[in-house]
Amino acid sequence: MSTKTKLDDDARKILEGKNFIFLATVNPDGSPQVTPTWVDTDGHYIFINTAVGRVKHKNVKKNPQVAMAITEQGNPYKLVMIRGRVIEQVTGPEAEGHIDKMAKKYTGAEKYQNRRPGEKRVLLKIEPHHVSRMR
Amino acid sequence: MSTKTKLDDDARKILEGKNFIFLATVNPDGSPQVTPTWVDTDGHYIFINTAVGRVKHKNVKKNPQVAMAITEQGNPYKLVMIRGRVIEQVTGPEAEGHIDKMAKKYTGAEKYQNRRPGEKRVLLKIEPHHVSRMR
Repeated sequence: MSTKTKLDDDARKILEGKNFIFLATVNPDGSPQVTPTWVDTDGHYIFINTAVGRVKHKNVKKNPQVAMAITEQGNPYKLVMIRGRVIEQVTGPEAEGHIDKMAKKYTGAEKYQNRRPGEKRVLLKIEPHHVSRMR
Repeated sequence: MSTKTKLDDDARKILEGKNFIFLATVNPDGSPQVTPTWVDTDGHYIFINTAVGRVKHKNVKKNPQVAMAITEQGNPYKLVMIRGRVIEQVTGPEAEGHIDKMAKKYTGAEKYQNRRPGEKRVLLKIEPHHVSRMR
């Protein structure tokens, strides 16, 4: 296992692939929460797009510390684990446009298909501070 | 999405399959931790076998609340999420035998191959209290 404080090429590659990341946050009562989600990176930060008011959004507003694990589709032993912190939350046109980019990456569709009436998106910008890799 | 307090047939099936579960725990500093791991079930409880002294073992000794997410290999949209509590920790022959059973399930080998010198296994028995399913 190798450990770094920043994303390396292997971490970038797995994040750029059509792989789901499992994002863990902490609930107000101190219990953990974990869900798989689409993920994006600019090579330095990790971006996760969620809907305003969802559990993970509420949780990171209170406690910005997050942990993530991502494996390669078809190779569950190729694993990257990342601990970090949500340092920015972006809403508005940037977040709305970004969910379409994610839909394109993961489903091939030009637009995100699962938007609910009145839903607002929020883009979580995560700064990694601990990156471990296996295989 | 359907939500129950116990494992239903769909949850059992995905747990019994050769699928990895992502187990989230909470570190002593209040940050979350998440790792993929092999998993077992008897239909009621969830069993996770780890090595004594690993982060997740240390964490659940302090805070037994856990969250888990598991998707089907090859179908990342088939998802079960489980919140629960570690209600028992078993060490000794039962835990040592159980890791061989897990190796058989996931790798086909008769014995667990990655044991480190002096490693002791611990079997975490988890009682689910909130089970959600998508698709």
